[in-house]
Amino acid sequence: MTTRAAVMPHLGTIEIQDLPDRTPGAREVVVRIEAVGICGSDAAYYKVGYIGDWVVDGPIVLGHEAAGRVEAIGSDVTQVAIGDRVAIEPGSPCRDCEDCLAGRYHLCPDLVFLATPPYDGALLEKLVIDERNLFTIPDTMSFEEGAMCEPLSVGIWACKRASLTPGDHVLVSGAGPVGILAAQAARAFGAASVTLVDVSEFRLAVAKELGFDTEFSSAPSERRFDVLLECAGAPGVLAAGLARLRTNGRAAMVGMPKEAVSLPLSNLNDKELTISLVNRYSHTWPMAIELIASGRVRVDTLITHHFGLDGTEEALTLASRVPDSLKAIIHPQQ
Amino acid sequence: MTTRAAVMPHLGTIEIQDLPDRTPGAREVVVRIEAVGICGSDAAYYKVGYIGDWVVDGPIVLGHEAAGRVEAIGSDVTQVAIGDRVAIEPGSPCRDCEDCLAGRYHLCPDLVFLATPPYDGALLEKLVIDERNLFTIPDTMSFEEGAMCEPLSVGIWACKRASLTPGDHVLVSGAGPVGILAAQAARAFGAASVTLVDVSEFRLAVAKELGFDTEFSSAPSERRFDVLLECAGAPGVLAAGLARLRTNGRAAMVGMPKEAVSLPLSNLNDKELTISLVNRYSHTWPMAIELIASGRVRVDTLITHHFGLDGTEEALTLASRVPDSLKAIIHPQQ
Amino acid sequence: MTTRAAVMPHLGTIEIQDLPDRTPGAREVVVRIEAVGICGSDAAYYKVGYIGDWVVDGPIVLGHEAAGRVEAIGSDVTQVAIGDRVAIEPGSPCRDCEDCLAGRYHLCPDLVFLATPPYDGALLEKLVIDERNLFTIPDTMSFEEGAMCEPLSVGIWACKRASLTPGDHVLVSGAGPVGILAAQAARAFGAASVTLVDVSEFRLAVAKELGFDTEFSSAPSERRFDVLLECAGAPGVLAAGLARLRTNGRAAMVGMPKEAVSLPLSNLNDKELTISLVNRYSHTWPMAIELIASGRVRVDTLITHHFGLDGTEEALTLASRVPDSLKAIIHPQQ
Amino acid sequence: MTTRAAVMPHLGTIEIQDLPDRTPGAREVVVRIEAVGICGSDAAYYKVGYIGDWVVDGPIVLGHEAAGRVEAIGSDVTQVAIGDRVAIEPGSPCRDCEDCLAGRYHLCPDLVFLATPPYDGALLEKLVIDERNLFTIPDTMSFEEGAMCEPLSVGIWACKRASLTPGDHVLVSGAGPVGILAAQAARAFGAASVTLVDVSEFRLAVAKELGFDTEFSSAPSERRFDVLLECAGAPGVLAAGLARLRTNGRAAMVGMPKEAVSLPLSNLNDKELTISLVNRYSHTWPMAIELIASGRVRVDTLITHHFGLDGTEEALTLASRVPDSLKAIIHPQQ
Repeated sequence: MTTRAAVMPHLGTIEIQDLPDRTPGAREVVVRIEAVGICGSDAAYYKVGYIGDWVVDGPIVLGHEAAGRVEAIGSDVTQVAIGDRVAIEPGSPCRDCEDCLAGRYHLCPDLVFLATPPYDGALLEKLVIDERNLFTIPDTMSFEEGAMCEPLSVGIWACKRASLTPGDHVLVSGAGPVGILAAQAARAFGAASVTLVDVSEFRLAVAKELGFDTEFSSAPSERRFDVLLECAGAPGVLAAGLARLRTNGRAAMVGMPKEAVSLPLSNLNDKELTISLVNRYSHTWPMAIELIASGRVRVDTLITHHFGLDGTEEALTLASRVPDSLKAIIHPQQ
Repeated sequence: MTTRAAVMPHLGTIEIQDLPDRTPGAREVVVRIEAVGICGSDAAYYKVGYIGDWVVDGPIVLGHEAAGRVEAIGSDVTQVAIGDRVAIEPGSPCRDCEDCLAGRYHLCPDLVFLATPPYDGALLEKLVIDERNLFTIPDTMSFEEGAMCEPLSVGIWACKRASLTPGDHVLVSGAGPVGILAAQAARAFGAASVTLVDVSEFRLAVAKELGFDTEFSSAPSERRFDVLLECAGAPGVLAAGLARLRTNGRAAMVGMPKEAVSLPLSNLNDKELTISLVNRYSHTWPMAIELIASGRVRVDTLITHHFGLDGTEEALTLASRVPDSLKAIIHPQQ
Repeated sequence: MTTRAAVMPHLGTIEIQDLPDRTPGAREVVVRIEAVGICGSDAAYYKVGYIGDWVVDGPIVLGHEAAGRVEAIGSDVTQVAIGDRVAIEPGSPCRDCEDCLAGRYHLCPDLVFLATPPYDGALLEKLVIDERNLFTIPDTMSFEEGAMCEPLSVGIWACKRASLTPGDHVLVSGAGPVGILAAQAARAFGAASVTLVDVSEFRLAVAKELGFDTEFSSAPSERRFDVLLECAGAPGVLAAGLARLRTNGRAAMVGMPKEAVSLPLSNLNDKELTISLVNRYSHTWPMAIELIASGRVRVDTLITHHFGLDGTEEALTLASRVPDSLKAIIHPQQ
Repeated sequence: MTTRAAVMPHLGTIEIQDLPDRTPGAREVVVRIEAVGICGSDAAYYKVGYIGDWVVDGPIVLGHEAAGRVEAIGSDVTQVAIGDRVAIEPGSPCRDCEDCLAGRYHLCPDLVFLATPPYDGALLEKLVIDERNLFTIPDTMSFEEGAMCEPLSVGIWACKRASLTPGDHVLVSGAGPVGILAAQAARAFGAASVTLVDVSEFRLAVAKELGFDTEFSSAPSERRFDVLLECAGAPGVLAAGLARLRTNGRAAMVGMPKEAVSLPLSNLNDKELTISLVNRYSHTWPMAIELIASGRVRVDTLITHHFGLDGTEEALTLASRVPDSLKAIIHPQQ
């Protein structure tokens, strides 16, 4: 038996191929993939073939924001049952190293992560994956919403890394999918106010519809903030955001500019800021599911485009072609 | 009555002047100053007239690392008595603003701080200061040791800002007085190991004598660290130190380079580092006194030169003239 | 000129008296009191004359949950203006002691607190109080809501003391006003679920209307929780709640039983619980106002009874006469 | 081949038996046991057969404070080599559950722990154990010191649970082996002072020799403390210790009285104390080894008695027969 998959055989090309089915191991599960979000990292691997030190080196299946339905289970699986609807956490840690045992499994040096070279991702019909990567979602939650638990996890983790405390006034720079989800996470964490800043009127309109304060980036207000969640990743945005923090301000750096970042630390140290780098997330899926299921986080207005597996290439180039787009979802079963 | 003081009437000049005595207010105390340490910031004000946004704008008395003996007290003073030997905390917060009430009095926007323009410092025979800036020291502790509570406080605070946890392996970049005191604070906080890195063999020898591991900066080892205390303030040192941190590493930025600092954040975010800026300290004097009095922190090997008040100018230019120097102490009564 | 006040001249009696007006000091404000909530502590002082070590020892004006409108201001007042609508924080710390400077002003040994002997409270027409105790509230917020910032502050602080983290499952024991406000604070802090347990069907119905899970105390479910907010103060409730916590569970003890509490610590230590005592709050008013103003916390369903100043005695005995009551509000201007 | 072991076939009896050797699994190691400390829990299992919910239900080998030398290794062992001297962490977590992944492996519900029923302990010649339980110790460290890493870990963890912060003044109630090791850990964590209180002049003399302040329990001083480490486990000691804490005081409860503990919480809540229960430790061995190896923690004065394996029964009853004893070490190879 085979599984249809969107394979990137080499840079800038996607081919639909039939891959041989893999038999699940004792704790593994076959998930019929129903929704996969396209992330900026997928687009980067497609276009330039690397992100930092991760380099694509051979054919790869992209996609790591995924949800689906359990179709078969290995002999020792206890946490999910056939038919369950599940959101998928893409990372599998070793569970044995110092970082894993210290509660930081996302920093595990042997982390296996969907669609991060050399590991394949979820842009296919059926994914075989460890049961511990699966979290059941309620019937009221769509598969698209299940897939959005992944970028929402980035937002949740950014709030944690920024030591966001109820009552904080929060600035989110970059109103892309991660920025808007981070903003919603901040609100759910008890932020007193959340302001999004961006260069796109379209994105700010989406943010405004969700009830956030917005600022066009070239015309910032005089407001000062306790927390900055930097989700833009463009040069200079971090420095501009840090300048707007109050004393004891905390910044989490989610967006990763390709170049080195220049920071005027001697002008910033009076405020005794704390800058936390962010590398994905850990322990976030239960909360992400709860936030979406309870309606505290909305993902529908972020999802601007839908494609079948055949539309993968179109989805990967969407952001560069259609400025007024946010998140594209691939439906591998269509 | 008058008080002899080392006044800087204009850039690069020190004059010994007789200033009119000031009558202490109800909660104020006259302290006969016995020892004042010369800090890099004193030298900077002397030489270039500013540090960041603080600009010398008129005659000023420098010196903020001070200790002495209580000579007279105001009518409402209860915390010290005439004859007490005291270490002086140089900052007076408003005790009324949001930062003060939140436990961060050192970030008070109205902080009055010795020898930070426009406020005069302690390079004089008699200082009038609020009793709440005074901490009695035991007879076994010298005035020089009392004065060293100030730079030690910087080191203590750096450890706190870095969330230094017992068992951490700590790298201190910059083996000047602050770096060596920060290293000793780190050891007192329960660091499993402390390594100092510098470009000066002389400074590393002082560090080695105090029992620390040392590295010459151009020949670093392969060791990795949990915590970085950056006390050099030279361009590039922060980036070099961050590269040597482990996952979940924490850095406190004490040294403040004049230029913007360029950081390769995208290469560092895998480790999910936290970078904390440092602006002086708060709540540190009791601990600083206890650490020195108990012998857990030694300051004697740091004090390389002594001067009377007349030697102030010589002391302020010492570092640029005598590379193998660390801390100069002025004895205003001599 | 005089001010009408509800004075308790001796235990169990309230008299309406005309007290001489007090001229406000330089930083003081005359507030025309519009709403005062009656708290269990008011009722205790009225009935038995003490709470713990605080003993009523002479005539006293009760009431510490208050809001009103600024009628006159002292010469140095800058934070409020005549006509401002304000919520009143009842405690005035010394701002000078170790606890104040450490950010814990609520633990100040010299705290002056409305209606805590020997200090008078707010059950009068005009209150003279320091401007720093006043927080302006928006026009959209009623004076009753302003007064409820005080018990909401208790709930907010309980969440902080319990280190409530977004995603926690929270049990609140005791569905009185403080319990229901604590539950709402917990939800605003990002709790994944909040369950209230009580012995009163009436109270549980109010809780249910606000969207909370509820349990009748004699028929608890098997659910386990991360956090317990103990707001009942009855013997045995703390132990019962601790038994329902998971590993690493955290409890905040708001309700204070008169007797010593017996805890089976040896049966609880496997879970490594943390029990935090709670003494009022600090730094909570801005957040309390924001939570009520934004609609995230609702107080209307808690307010079951209203009285004029003449009805103070009736209000103080309400809870013992009318089981199906929650919060009584006194309107001193009526 | 067989291994000599001290077996408790039934309550109050120890027999030296020859147990069949067990072949080590792929990640297991055969450790030749050189030193085993006798703990109060060993004595309790011997005498009454249970501790809390753990009940001895069949023959058992006691002893969980152990060190020895690697004699053979399984095929996949990489962390130790034959001949290595090792300290043994007695607990093996599942590394897979929520607690393990959250960094709290000591709270793992499936924890396998030496000498906790139904698992055998280390009072034998050769122990087969997972390599991940082994930590190499330097040649300068004796096997007795290696064995003492276990009770020292309890002390280290108590300090962490109490959020001990450098500069804290610490009271340790109970000057038994755990109390004295906790006191030394507190000093290594940067405590400004550490005071031990006990009813035994012998124990206080040992504490005094290590440089601690001491108090006879019936004649306490008026001093107040920031942190209480309760290591006595006798009724009333916790309440007495809590009464001596300052505002914001923190207590860790190490000793576990058999009966419920009665606490006057309403008298304590003014100070807003935090009480943390303690269940063993996690992540402590590297630090424990470093503290002993560096001389910052001394264990020699605690070790008052030595026995061969034949002396196990004598060691288990030592505390009840010889009041002036602290720690007995069994040397299984003698």
